[in-house]
Amino acid sequence: MYTFLILNGPNLGHVGKRQPEIYGSDKIEDIPDHLQKMMGEKAAQIKLEFFQSNSEGALIDRLEKARADKIDGIAFNAGAYTHTSLAIADSLAWIDVPCVEVHISNIWARTQDPVRQHSFMGKQCLGVIAGFGILSYVLAVQALFCHVTAD
Amino acid sequence: MYTFLILNGPNLGHVGKRQPEIYGSDKIEDIPDHLQKMMGEKAAQIKLEFFQSNSEGALIDRLEKARADKIDGIAFNAGAYTHTSLAIADSLAWIDVPCVEVHISNIWARTQDPVRQHSFMGKQCLGVIAGFGILSYVLAVQALFCHVTAD
Amino acid sequence: MYTFLILNGPNLGHVGKRQPEIYGSDKIEDIPDHLQKMMGEKAAQIKLEFFQSNSEGALIDRLEKARADKIDGIAFNAGAYTHTSLAIADSLAWIDVPCVEVHISNIWARTQDPVRQHSFMGKQCLGVIAGFGILSYVLAVQALFCHVTAD
Amino acid sequence: MYTFLILNGPNLGHVGKRQPEIYGSDKIEDIPDHLQKMMGEKAAQIKLEFFQSNSEGALIDRLEKARADKIDGIAFNAGAYTHTSLAIADSLAWIDVPCVEVHISNIWARTQDPVRQHSFMGKQCLGVIAGFGILSYVLAVQALFCHVTAD
Amino acid sequence: MYTFLILNGPNLGHVGKRQPEIYGSDKIEDIPDHLQKMMGEKAAQIKLEFFQSNSEGALIDRLEKARADKIDGIAFNAGAYTHTSLAIADSLAWIDVPCVEVHISNIWARTQDPVRQHSFMGKQCLGVIAGFGILSYVLAVQALFCHVTAD
Amino acid sequence: MYTFLILNGPNLGHVGKRQPEIYGSDKIEDIPDHLQKMMGEKAAQIKLEFFQSNSEGALIDRLEKARADKIDGIAFNAGAYTHTSLAIADSLAWIDVPCVEVHISNIWARTQDPVRQHSFMGKQCLGVIAGFGILSYVLAVQALFCHVTAD
Amino acid sequence: MYTFLILNGPNLGHVGKRQPEIYGSDKIEDIPDHLQKMMGEKAAQIKLEFFQSNSEGALIDRLEKARADKIDGIAFNAGAYTHTSLAIADSLAWIDVPCVEVHISNIWARTQDPVRQHSFMGKQCLGVIAGFGILSYVLAVQALFCHVTAD
Amino acid sequence: MYTFLILNGPNLGHVGKRQPEIYGSDKIEDIPDHLQKMMGEKAAQIKLEFFQSNSEGALIDRLEKARADKIDGIAFNAGAYTHTSLAIADSLAWIDVPCVEVHISNIWARTQDPVRQHSFMGKQCLGVIAGFGILSYVLAVQALFCHVTAD
Amino acid sequence: MYTFLILNGPNLGHVGKRQPEIYGSDKIEDIPDHLQKMMGEKAAQIKLEFFQSNSEGALIDRLEKARADKIDGIAFNAGAYTHTSLAIADSLAWIDVPCVEVHISNIWARTQDPVRQHSFMGKQCLGVIAGFGILSYVLAVQALFCHVTAD
Amino acid sequence: MYTFLILNGPNLGHVGKRQPEIYGSDKIEDIPDHLQKMMGEKAAQIKLEFFQSNSEGALIDRLEKARADKIDGIAFNAGAYTHTSLAIADSLAWIDVPCVEVHISNIWARTQDPVRQHSFMGKQCLGVIAGFGILSYVLAVQALFCHVTAD
Amino acid sequence: MYTFLILNGPNLGHVGKRQPEIYGSDKIEDIPDHLQKMMGEKAAQIKLEFFQSNSEGALIDRLEKARADKIDGIAFNAGAYTHTSLAIADSLAWIDVPCVEVHISNIWARTQDPVRQHSFMGKQCLGVIAGFGILSYVLAVQALFCHVTAD
Amino acid sequence: MYTFLILNGPNLGHVGKRQPEIYGSDKIEDIPDHLQKMMGEKAAQIKLEFFQSNSEGALIDRLEKARADKIDGIAFNAGAYTHTSLAIADSLAWIDVPCVEVHISNIWARTQDPVRQHSFMGKQCLGVIAGFGILSYVLAVQALFCHVTAD
Repeated sequence: MYTFLILNGPNLGHVGKRQPEIYGSDKIEDIPDHLQKMMGEKAAQIKLEFFQSNSEGALIDRLEKARADKIDGIAFNAGAYTHTSLAIADSLAWIDVPCVEVHISNIWARTQDPVRQHSFMGKQCLGVIAGFGILSYVLAVQALFCHVTAD
Repeated sequence: MYTFLILNGPNLGHVGKRQPEIYGSDKIEDIPDHLQKMMGEKAAQIKLEFFQSNSEGALIDRLEKARADKIDGIAFNAGAYTHTSLAIADSLAWIDVPCVEVHISNIWARTQDPVRQHSFMGKQCLGVIAGFGILSYVLAVQALFCHVTAD
Repeated sequence: MYTFLILNGPNLGHVGKRQPEIYGSDKIEDIPDHLQKMMGEKAAQIKLEFFQSNSEGALIDRLEKARADKIDGIAFNAGAYTHTSLAIADSLAWIDVPCVEVHISNIWARTQDPVRQHSFMGKQCLGVIAGFGILSYVLAVQALFCHVTAD
Repeated sequence: MYTFLILNGPNLGHVGKRQPEIYGSDKIEDIPDHLQKMMGEKAAQIKLEFFQSNSEGALIDRLEKARADKIDGIAFNAGAYTHTSLAIADSLAWIDVPCVEVHISNIWARTQDPVRQHSFMGKQCLGVIAGFGILSYVLAVQALFCHVTAD
Repeated sequence: MYTFLILNGPNLGHVGKRQPEIYGSDKIEDIPDHLQKMMGEKAAQIKLEFFQSNSEGALIDRLEKARADKIDGIAFNAGAYTHTSLAIADSLAWIDVPCVEVHISNIWARTQDPVRQHSFMGKQCLGVIAGFGILSYVLAVQALFCHVTAD
Repeated sequence: MYTFLILNGPNLGHVGKRQPEIYGSDKIEDIPDHLQKMMGEKAAQIKLEFFQSNSEGALIDRLEKARADKIDGIAFNAGAYTHTSLAIADSLAWIDVPCVEVHISNIWARTQDPVRQHSFMGKQCLGVIAGFGILSYVLAVQALFCHVTAD
Repeated sequence: MYTFLILNGPNLGHVGKRQPEIYGSDKIEDIPDHLQKMMGEKAAQIKLEFFQSNSEGALIDRLEKARADKIDGIAFNAGAYTHTSLAIADSLAWIDVPCVEVHISNIWARTQDPVRQHSFMGKQCLGVIAGFGILSYVLAVQALFCHVTAD
Repeated sequence: MYTFLILNGPNLGHVGKRQPEIYGSDKIEDIPDHLQKMMGEKAAQIKLEFFQSNSEGALIDRLEKARADKIDGIAFNAGAYTHTSLAIADSLAWIDVPCVEVHISNIWARTQDPVRQHSFMGKQCLGVIAGFGILSYVLAVQALFCHVTAD
Repeated sequence: MYTFLILNGPNLGHVGKRQPEIYGSDKIEDIPDHLQKMMGEKAAQIKLEFFQSNSEGALIDRLEKARADKIDGIAFNAGAYTHTSLAIADSLAWIDVPCVEVHISNIWARTQDPVRQHSFMGKQCLGVIAGFGILSYVLAVQALFCHVTAD
Repeated sequence: MYTFLILNGPNLGHVGKRQPEIYGSDKIEDIPDHLQKMMGEKAAQIKLEFFQSNSEGALIDRLEKARADKIDGIAFNAGAYTHTSLAIADSLAWIDVPCVEVHISNIWARTQDPVRQHSFMGKQCLGVIAGFGILSYVLAVQALFCHVTAD
Repeated sequence: MYTFLILNGPNLGHVGKRQPEIYGSDKIEDIPDHLQKMMGEKAAQIKLEFFQSNSEGALIDRLEKARADKIDGIAFNAGAYTHTSLAIADSLAWIDVPCVEVHISNIWARTQDPVRQHSFMGKQCLGVIAGFGILSYVLAVQALFCHVTAD
Repeated sequence: MYTFLILNGPNLGHVGKRQPEIYGSDKIEDIPDHLQKMMGEKAAQIKLEFFQSNSEGALIDRLEKARADKIDGIAFNAGAYTHTSLAIADSLAWIDVPCVEVHISNIWARTQDPVRQHSFMGKQCLGVIAGFGILSYVLAVQALFCHVTAD
């Protein structure tokens, strides 16, 4: 049994309601269903935890708890903190839990927003999955599962 | 039945042999096996085509052929051309075939290489998947399949 | 009856005491009096709420509450977060409440402080009023009142 | 009795006709009416002068005349010269007449136009009011009135 | 009799079909008709050659052939290579054939695309004609004709 | 009958005398002859107006007059103001008269002069013609004629 | 008797455990012992308070409390907020308590990390001590003691 | 007999009155006296003309007149246009009259004003004299006299 | 017996003919003679291969062949691709053949050409020899010979 | 017994006399007294050497001598060379003597002086102590003593 | 009697011989004659000292001696150190001797040399005189004389 | 007989001892042996002089002496001054002695050190040879020999 944390940063408590023309209308709560559909019976080996906060400090607290809890992996959408929080990146650097950077939209396609072209988190993550709506989280869990099972 | 193109750019004709300490030892040829393992029987609905070239022009020619052939989607690792080829990006902008940007390593983690922090392709792709070795391609095909089947 | 939120960010819990040579000695609590004086009987149509926090996350929580409460408008002085918080700007982008950016001093006159020359909030606000001390808030409420009454 | 100058720079001779989808359809000539409505009987203490020119030199000449005439304050929308004219800023620096920087649109929201993110005037003004259409001028006169009457 | 080369770079093999809302629906093949209409009987003194390639190397090869063939002039739309190919610029620098830089759209109007604001070719060309659709080529041939006949 | 304005900015009152080694010795006054030679009898459908000023404000005044006069098009060489005048660009943005940016020399070939590599006007023009001496104006009129006659 | 606050920012709740190859294995709790060893009997005149938080807002709250409590000085290691928090710097600017900027590692030696080469706090501190592990705090207390005793 | 033009740009019509703490209280009108004192009887060989305008265009007109009048030299303080006017620099480039760039204050000492660290005029002038108040003009005339008499 | 590859990029198929005032009139074909003259009988231990292409892709293909052929070293003048091709640099990074970067002119002396001041290849080469015309290749072969013979 | 070198760069031969309002009036000669006061009897284990030069070369010579003499550590205030001398940094990189970077003022607080925000030395030093006047040297010696005695 | 120091930096020991096409053929030794010719009998009140060195340190030593000697003023051509030596600028900042920055050529006209567009010295000098060959020194002495005699 | 100067800058007095893992263990004193081995009997025509200094000024003095002595050529490794000394570059510009820029390591491969990517000397040298350890000097002498004998 593997436990993965779906971790969401600021303004991600309303996914599916906030600007659906950009972000789609799927919700975070739909992730287990999608996971079931994509992974079939393997999904039964996965337990998901969910946490969202608008506060940079609370997210770091949660990352430290993930380390203490020996969580198997994190699918982390840090929202705007992706681009401004060196403190979150420093936390990822030492907690030693595999992390995949997740984005609902393809931030690298939003070239008119230069601040969004740089990720502080990138350097501390296994990889990145962006642009597939709620499915980005599902693929990230898939990738974490392969990573921890070396499958 | 869906046809997806696995398109590889310069220096990607030797994946698995080139700098395995960075890129892993899996090969492009291993993709169908991984896909089978990850997607199960759904994999039977997918036909893969493969093309690799070191030439920017040949890659654009191949993208135009993909449009003519009405390919269902492209998992495209443009290698170094990701960062230098505006011409490839222009091609993606008009051929109107869903494309996922793929990278074997997490290029955003290679922060000592500023030129690799910018992707010309990003703006023209559905999304990006980077950092999972050969699995990046497999997840990209997974994402394309969901996209075209709206699954 | 219209309800407007006077929202204040970090280091704005001590206005009137903090560096009065830069910011003046008027207090946030003096706003209703000034409003009465400036707007006369129209002021009776306005109810003000007040919130201040040093925490970026708490400010975003409050903005989300403003949306839930269907507040009519916000006069928002985000203090230093004006210049560093993309997360607050993202929140303003979706809560769909008219907001006026407020500053006590004329931040564009502090040219020796380049970081203060850029506002993340600007893009998401109706307009900006800066440089008039506590009066900046009063003028912002005036502007919000005109906006919502189309007066 | 206080005399304020409504000073307008290039391309502002046609406000209300020029690009109304950006700038609204109110006219400069409507300012006194708005002022009356906003300030009530206090408006009787205010005399407005109007000047518009497309020429940088003529605007500086007019500023020097404002100093000679001992005008009580200026609501100045310098249009594009806001962003390119160091000479106008130098003039404001020495004429010693209170000036409020005015913009019809919220120039800081037009982030795709980097040249409009910098104001040469800012450093020499009391404050700035931007984004409220013709009402920006009215609020600026309101702010000047409070400033000179210390009201 | 004068021979001019109409040389086209990447993604210009489909002009008239590719993104007609940006580039119009005229085709490269329509150039002779337009030339006839614009120049009248003078058009009879002009022989046009056509070459298009998506490959930077093939374009340089063709430029070297143009020099060997003593072509009288080149109307060259290098597409995206305009902005990325120093090698093409180096070729123009030595082949000693008059060249006019041509663009279908007005690239300097696409200010949201900074990479398109710089042309490597410019320094090596007589002049530039951009923004007039297929007519840009026709005007370029007109300009080359005047240049070589000193007309 | 179509009326086009040949509009010239600073230091262009002496074309043919000023630095002929850079700009050639043809004069503005020679344009009608060249037009006759290039367009033949079609030239009879064209009436040209000429205006030159060293003053940014006077040029904007003239552009506003062109709008009032319902001029059919403008061939505009703004000289150095091309690179420094946001006010002229703002004028072009609203007068709604087709305009072609004209330069006598190929400014993009003068790469040692970085300030000349950027045009404020570009964004507001149909297209640009540069590098052909006085002929640049003639080709611009040709292009305007095709544009307005949809020829 | 002097009271100094040892204030620690994000990711500094685990000093001695986090990345010991960079930061050493000494703990914050060891500071009093080191102080005793370095200062001898003078150490008896010093009372230390300790506070750590991952939250930017909580740190500002604590700084405001330090002012209210009339603390004699602060040895402040703001961690990653050193480089991103203008709000903390603004707080230091007005609380009027002597502060020494402390870092465990020599951040200026980590030149591959450009974001760490700039400190928002610097401008508001007496001085900086960096690179000596836990000893950096001890030297900072030493420096504060000399400062307040003018020793 | 030599004729030199003392040419002054924007905000220089009030030298001696404007910000005397920066610019001193000497007046332009005092130049002949200073010249007499410095040059003695040689001053009799010099005739001075004076012109000041706040308008960029009027200054260029005056430069063109200086060329037509075959003036022997110009001591030119372009004020803020020094830093923003490419058009004035272009005029100096072709009128072929020796020009000395003059500034009352040492603009290179005003390092907090980056825009004042660059002079468009410099490239087109014999030399520059800055920082000596009204004496800067006198030294410039001295230098022009030596230049034209090869003294 | 050692085999070295003399590899030339774009526009280097005409060395000796192209711009001889910059590059000299010696030809690639003269390299063996120069080598004989410089190295004497040691030259007999060296076999040279030659390849030139204008195509980035073909050069990478050739580098991969050099690896397959176990070539002893490469003297590589990549021409303009030196400055624009990350793909060639990536190829050098993995083929594991000693390579010396060669330039006919001293590119670092062409400071007016900023793009030529940066080499993508540098990081992947033993060293660089530039500025000695055809002799640069000869010295590079000399250096490769010393390297492989540890002489 | 430990020997430490107090090394001072340009303009530091007059500390205590030069700009005392910035740098204080303590002298380099007062260091041993301060050290005695701060360290008590431990100070007896420390022998100090002093060297000051205005010459970059002489400072490097002295560093090489420190290596030859097997000095135990260096407290080095390089003055302005901190910010401009790569050669001094290169020397520190190889002499293998522990060095602490010292500044009398807090250079990071002098934000109006961008050139002083970067230290070439930093990368080669144990740590930095800045802002405490002459006490900075004393604390540096204290830190070096702890370092070499592992105290 | 006033004593002024003519201070020359690197490569200025051969003025008149070094690149006379740029710098002219007058020599430093010719300054007294020029001074006599320009100032007449006032020249008798002036004693000149001369010093030249290629060493940055020696120049600072000489500036410190000028302070000790109570020299009345310095005409200082620091050559290339103008643009690279912060240490010399720091020396000028404290020695409290009036200094005029001198250049033989007009460095601001050498715009192809960006490094020469910035002077470290400027901030610490009365003013600057550049572009008049050896006469630049003579005018600087003239300006110093006026300054110290308040003439 | 030809005389060449082997000139070495700061920190190059200990080549072979300093950081041998980067620079190798060969010594400057080994150059004649290597030269003998590479050039055979031609080496007899060459006389080498050696000079090393850590002082920028002393190196310029030595370059001026090389000019006075009519030295035939210089192989110059300026060490860190390569990247910071405009004064040395200015000296090379006028002494008119052929100079080859030499580096022991391939500085262009040290891309993590941006300051080392720019050479002030380059513009004034025949060419550059870098990356071959002590052999770089030997190849430079070889190149100088070919240059002066036109061999």
